[in-house]
Amino acid sequence: MKRFEAYGWHCEYVEKGDTDLQGIEDAIKRCQDVKDKPSVIKLTTTIGFGSQLQGTGGVHGNPLKADDIKHVKKQFGFDPEQSFVVPQEVYDMYHKTADNGAAAEAEWNKLFEKYASEHKEAHTDLARRLTGKLPEGWQKSLPTYKPTDDAIASRKLSESVLEAIYEAVPELVSGSADLTGSNNTRWKKAVDFQPPNTGIGQWNGRYMRYGVREHAMAAIMNGLAAYGTLIPAGGTFLNFVSYAAGAVRLSALSHQRVLYIATHDSIGLGEDGPTHQPIETLAHFRALPNIMVWRPADGNECSAAYYVALTSRETPSLLALTRQNLPQLEGSTIEKASKGGYVALEQEKADVTLVSTGSEVGICLEAVKTLKDEYQLTARVVSMPCMEVFDAQDKDYRLSVIPDGIPTMSVEVMSTLGWEKYSHEQFGLNRFGASGAYKDVYKKFEFTPEGIAKRAKKTVDFYKDVKPLRSPINRAFLQLI
Amino acid sequence: MKRFEAYGWHCEYVEKGDTDLQGIEDAIKRCQDVKDKPSVIKLTTTIGFGSQLQGTGGVHGNPLKADDIKHVKKQFGFDPEQSFVVPQEVYDMYHKTADNGAAAEAEWNKLFEKYASEHKEAHTDLARRLTGKLPEGWQKSLPTYKPTDDAIASRKLSESVLEAIYEAVPELVSGSADLTGSNNTRWKKAVDFQPPNTGIGQWNGRYMRYGVREHAMAAIMNGLAAYGTLIPAGGTFLNFVSYAAGAVRLSALSHQRVLYIATHDSIGLGEDGPTHQPIETLAHFRALPNIMVWRPADGNECSAAYYVALTSRETPSLLALTRQNLPQLEGSTIEKASKGGYVALEQEKADVTLVSTGSEVGICLEAVKTLKDEYQLTARVVSMPCMEVFDAQDKDYRLSVIPDGIPTMSVEVMSTLGWEKYSHEQFGLNRFGASGAYKDVYKKFEFTPEGIAKRAKKTVDFYKDVKPLRSPINRAFLQLI
Repeated sequence: MKRFEAYGWHCEYVEKGDTDLQGIEDAIKRCQDVKDKPSVIKLTTTIGFGSQLQGTGGVHGNPLKADDIKHVKKQFGFDPEQSFVVPQEVYDMYHKTADNGAAAEAEWNKLFEKYASEHKEAHTDLARRLTGKLPEGWQKSLPTYKPTDDAIASRKLSESVLEAIYEAVPELVSGSADLTGSNNTRWKKAVDFQPPNTGIGQWNGRYMRYGVREHAMAAIMNGLAAYGTLIPAGGTFLNFVSYAAGAVRLSALSHQRVLYIATHDSIGLGEDGPTHQPIETLAHFRALPNIMVWRPADGNECSAAYYVALTSRETPSLLALTRQNLPQLEGSTIEKASKGGYVALEQEKADVTLVSTGSEVGICLEAVKTLKDEYQLTARVVSMPCMEVFDAQDKDYRLSVIPDGIPTMSVEVMSTLGWEKYSHEQFGLNRFGASGAYKDVYKKFEFTPEGIAKRAKKTVDFYKDVKPLRSPINRAFLQLI
Repeated sequence: MKRFEAYGWHCEYVEKGDTDLQGIEDAIKRCQDVKDKPSVIKLTTTIGFGSQLQGTGGVHGNPLKADDIKHVKKQFGFDPEQSFVVPQEVYDMYHKTADNGAAAEAEWNKLFEKYASEHKEAHTDLARRLTGKLPEGWQKSLPTYKPTDDAIASRKLSESVLEAIYEAVPELVSGSADLTGSNNTRWKKAVDFQPPNTGIGQWNGRYMRYGVREHAMAAIMNGLAAYGTLIPAGGTFLNFVSYAAGAVRLSALSHQRVLYIATHDSIGLGEDGPTHQPIETLAHFRALPNIMVWRPADGNECSAAYYVALTSRETPSLLALTRQNLPQLEGSTIEKASKGGYVALEQEKADVTLVSTGSEVGICLEAVKTLKDEYQLTARVVSMPCMEVFDAQDKDYRLSVIPDGIPTMSVEVMSTLGWEKYSHEQFGLNRFGASGAYKDVYKKFEFTPEGIAKRAKKTVDFYKDVKPLRSPINRAFLQLI
């Protein structure tokens, strides 16, 4: 209780928690009167109260035996010989509760109609938000980019999306687990969600300061999404999303539209080193059902990630974003990237397909030149910002992106686990990273045009005699249950 | 501080944490006098104290500018024009500290020699444990099984291993995150690690009651392993190892010999349902570098898992164990299973290879009969209890287990992510599970001899015309960096 007091909660204690029903009711009422803080009620109880095994661990994890069920029924004034009997008294009370609920709903509906006539705009907004639909045309606010635009880190691209859409999507609420300045999750005019008397925010503020509490952030976002009328987005480093794994799993299991803004998404984050550099994280969440893992390669892909994430009402999304700058790609559009995977560079009579995500797509495009100059090989490049969305496309489309007859090599600067699904060979990092400047670390592990070209050449040679060569996509069943 | 008081800690507070060096020293001394509880010292400090940016977030995450470095040096009495200068006073103090250390070491060594003469056995044991080597011949205690032995749940097989080896391996300490009865982590004569005056344990007890605190358990085990002379093993449900993801990652990154005993390892756990049923967990930890993920199929494989885990001094291990009974396999031995993957059933002119782990290996072996009876197909079966150890075998061995020319289908009742590495087709569960009795849930998702045979037949048909068919093992590079 001291701990909850330390957190500033209102604390109540009921000593005879097994029997003191009046005491429990009184405590609840006192809590209801406390308007400015949360409450906790501690009750001292006996495990399995009333059972022959009461007070022992034996009553946990196993059903009661037949004679013990009778014993419990006797304790509480039921007929021990009857089963599945609900007393009329209980029916009456539940029926009364249903009537009360219907009356409360009718009253609320009347109030909501009155709200419609007196506050037309706010009513329309709330009515829409209750359905989960986004405002008509909101997606026109999404930024688009040309290849001549500046190279920009995808964490900054994400910030530009938030800046561009926060007015069009008023249900979007953002926040960060104490990394606001690094996650770029806050639009300029954002107001902190805080009690007004603190002078640092408002109750209608749309920005949450979650503290260094990734798991709590994810759990709170699940609650906001489950309540409805809000779409929560929250930031931390990609590697630290692991601290929230339990709650991210619940986002997926309970179908919550929650956005995880996961910046510093690779060894490219620099000097913080291996403790901060994700290796296994994308594989972890790609293996989790009902979550989309996005790793955009440029501005259009970043807008596509937000577009699909915000329009997927029953699915959370994780956006893996870079600290380092990324060039705007020649072949990217929001529409193409919204398919999860697409051909970023097509070439006739290609010798190899390079399939990649995020910061490595640009390096693969550079490697195309190296392959031509050094090895006289023609490479095509596939960008795969989201495997889950790509997998949902029809097989013809998927085979057009990763066709039969061409050896395919994946390039992603982390665990290769799962990439065998899309490629014959995998270039990744199945070890922990290293501490150093972005360019030095990429060079050390050969995630350079030369390093990629060298391995692509090896891939081409190895599969030279395999004719016909099947695409890894060309399988009997994909995720068949 | 109230929170730490609530936890029963000794609490100290130094108000002027930036400048009150005497106050800090006094607080430390008072803490050193407290022998029966941990201490915490709270200091009120200024971020970036002495810098021009002191008291602002600007001093965090970025190096100080040149003029600010000079400013700081001036504040603390250093010459602002000098860089990388260590005052003689500091050298003197460190040299003195080194001398003190050398003297303390000499004294300890003398004491240790005295210990050798007065307590020969205990000295020999401690000297050995300090090297990290296990006692000679300990592995002879590992249980072995014949195919005629009873079907047993692998969580029970794990308990039998602990029961068999706890005397031979005195450095093994076990525990559980409040699931002792379910994880089967406690040998019968185990003594709880507790203050003797509580009457429920001893300071030399080798069993830890960690509480429902998976992350704390993993962190504490890392500490025990790092200190040395102890090998910690700790249990929870496989799905809840995710709560400890951050600390498990540190076990791997910092090379700690820690054993995670992860029971209830699939939808086979029954009625607890999807919140408790791991889908992504094995893929998550298989993607993490320097950890072995074991999923034994029977008693010999369980002993092999312990054998490799305990003899791998620089690598943590996760043992995924069932709640449901598993038959003892015909072809398993500790030696074979210690290779990570082996042929559990060889057949001449096989039409298909089934590669599987844990509870599904036995079902695959039954499916062999169904395939023969229903489809006139011959199947061979590979058991792959640990991918990481299998990957470390030479390519000839790996190709002998999963040879060219035979279509391969993996069978594991969870995410298929990563199985593309060893199989052409994957039968798994890329969705959340369902709540129900073990047999009903396995039937629902068709993890039955019939369900496996049906898909194996489809696999054979699909690859009929692909000649020559390469093994998935037959790649240009595997995990090449």
